[in-house]
Order: sequence, then structure tokens, then C-alpha cells
Amino acid sequence: MLILALDTATDKGSLALVAADQLLAESSLESRGTYLTRLLPEVEALFRHTGRQLAEIGAVAVSRGPGNFTGLRIGLATAKALAWSLNCPLVAVPTMEALAAQFPCHPDPIGVLLDAKRNEVFWGLYRCPADLPQELSPPERLPLGQLRPRLTPPLTLTGPGLKVYGDFLEPSLPLGVTLAPLELREPRAASVARLGRLRLALGLTVSPAQLIPTYLRPAL
Amino acid sequence: MLILALDTATDKGSLALVAADQLLAESSLESRGTYLTRLLPEVEALFRHTGRQLAEIGAVAVSRGPGNFTGLRIGLATAKALAWSLNCPLVAVPTMEALAAQFPCHPDPIGVLLDAKRNEVFWGLYRCPADLPQELSPPERLPLGQLRPRLTPPLTLTGPGLKVYGDFLEPSLPLGVTLAPLELREPRAASVARLGRLRLALGLTVSPAQLIPTYLRPAL
Repeated sequence: MLILALDTATDKGSLALVAADQLLAESSLESRGTYLTRLLPEVEALFRHTGRQLAEIGAVAVSRGPGNFTGLRIGLATAKALAWSLNCPLVAVPTMEALAAQFPCHPDPIGVLLDAKRNEVFWGLYRCPADLPQELSPPERLPLGQLRPRLTPPLTLTGPGLKVYGDFLEPSLPLGVTLAPLELREPRAASVARLGRLRLALGLTVSPAQLIPTYLRPAL
Repeated sequence: MLILALDTATDKGSLALVAADQLLAESSLESRGTYLTRLLPEVEALFRHTGRQLAEIGAVAVSRGPGNFTGLRIGLATAKALAWSLNCPLVAVPTMEALAAQFPCHPDPIGVLLDAKRNEVFWGLYRCPADLPQELSPPERLPLGQLRPRLTPPLTLTGPGLKVYGDFLEPSLPLGVTLAPLELREPRAASVARLGRLRLALGLTVSPAQLIPTYLRPAL
């Protein structure tokens, strides 16, 4: 049973097609400015390159935010439409959990940083004692100036927010607060798929009619 | 300074364009049967989607094996030709190191498993106490039957070989030997880029004329 996963929550989106025992294909979308035009053709390309059929999709998993307003709207709209038209379950995965899931058995807490614009950040704290992330504190939206007191060692920082605020933070990071390797700082649709498959097994599906993004900010 | 990284060592290839402080784009190639026709168009697409120029490439990093004969030959030939024609340094990264690099600060040794065909495996053992993998024993080619004695806990198994031999191994894995999350079992060009950048800083470049793949098997 295949899971199609979409992540367009941040500046760099991705999509993945994942079987129970392997990642079949994953591709990245480099700019959220192109999500609306590139997302669906890339979905089509995933199937074309893997030789799989739409009918094999058992569920659609989508990264639900927090993140960029427009990216989330395009991703969720696409995921809802696919799940509804294919008549398959839809699961929504918190974007920060997908980021923290890339650090299995990590000994330290994982701090996830996303850019919330207007000099604010989305901040989440997880640990990942085995394969699955556990939330240590609820995700929040903070003024950048309130971030530093949360950076208590030991801590590994990750998330695309480091692209924006890494230079600001790095010179004064406390000893024991480290930055994740570059390639583990972006959310991956393949992680969304894995966490989505677990949610599916637990019956944690959502209705296409009811799913809304996690904005952590009042919608305009 | 950008690094262009290619990995076609296994069944699922990838390529990435990476700046000093961020992963700009990464894409996957789902089938090694298509490397020859898809690799260069995908390189071109990376630049088109990111708006970057070939002239910005400061080095080419390539995954050098062990892995599939044909995939490695196509990847290395492409990397050599690009580095030579762009007159930039070429660095070669062991494929297993790129796999182990996806487990920063992992508390246990990382066992990397690749399919060597003919009922043989490529096997490597690493630890990754911080961001960089350290080799615990030299990579080797083994008959599948000789693998089990090497699976001593604690150990986390990864690598695309698990797609082929996971079902054979999983029922009798010793307690304390675990399988990596699905999305961390394939080599990533983004990891090749990170390890390649380090090699470049250390002056560990290779000449396009002299680089050959690590086959761990006499070439036919």
C-alpha cells in the first residue's frame, strides 16, 4: 500500500511516494513561488518514473504546518483534492514532527526552528529516543528576541529557520547547543509519509472537508 | 561557493546543489536504468529551478561506491566530465560514509548494508559521534551467510541493502539490533556534498584522470 506525501510548509517543498518497506521516490521543490505550477506535475512525474499507478495509493499524507501561509494552502488543497477524488484516507502530520523525525535515537533534545516572518519564529522542542519524535513542549510562535532563553544545552537545532536566523544565533550559542547537518534541516515528504503511515494505523485520519493548516497565527 | 553532488552508486540515485549554509535543491533518480538519460537533464533542472549558474560551482562531489557497476560508471564519468570542463576540483566520497552521515550523534554503531548481487552484500561499520562518520572497520564484500555474525548489538542497520535482505534478516535480529527509519536508508547527494566540502577543505581532491570507483570486487 503506497502513501503519497506532500510537504509545502516551508520554502523548500518535497513530495514522496513510499511503500511499506521502501521509499520509492522523492523529489524536492526548490521555491514556494512555484508550488502551484510544479506540485501536480511533480506528482505525475513520481508515478511516471516509478511505474506505479494512482490506484495503488492507500493514503495521502500532508505536512500541516506551521509554515508559510500560501505553501500550506496549496499543499493542503492538493492533498485534500487527491484524497477525495481517489477516495482514500487523508492524514495530516505536524511539520515540526517531520523535521524532528530525522534524528532517530538522538541523545539530545531537538529544537525546531521555522521562519514565521516579521522577525518571529515558530519554535518546537522534541526528543526522538527511538524512531518517533515526542513533543517536549507545544509548538509556539515567538518574537526572535524571545528565542535565546529557550536554547538551553544539550540541544541540537534544526529547521529551515536556521537559513534565516543561523548567522544571528551562531556566534553566541551556548556550549552544548549545536546545529544539525545541513541536509537534515529541511522537512522531507518521506518523513511525512512515515509519520503519516503510523497515524493511519492508529486511525488518526482527517476529513478533507475539515482539515485546516496549523498556522500558529490568526489567518488574515 | 556551490557544490554539485552526484550519487548513482545504488538503485536510487540523487543529485544536489548545496551552498555553504544551505541545501539549495536535491532530486532523486528512481531507477538506475535511467541514469544515463536522466542524470544530465536533472543537473540542468537543478540549475534552472534554483536560478543558479554553472559558473558558481566550486567543486563537484561524487559518490564513489561500492555499489552498482553501471551506476557508478555513469556517475563518475559525469562528475569527471563536469569537473574537467568547468575546471573545478573533484572530490570522491565513499558511498557508505554518506549513508552513515545521516545519523549524527547516534549512540550506536551504524551498520551499512548494500546489495552486491549474487547473494553477496557490501558491509561497512561506522560510528557517528557528532556530524561526521568514523569507519570502525574497512568496508568489505561478504557472502550473505557471513553477515549475521557481524550483527552484534547495539547496532542500527541502514542502507538500500535492507530492501533486498531486510525480510531475510529481520525475523532473527538480535535484541538491540534495529533498522533505521525508511527515509534514512538511501544515500543522499546532499550528504555527499557535505562530506565532499569537508574533503575539499582538507585538500583531498582527486584528478578526473585517476578517479576510479570503489568496487570491492574485481571488475569484469
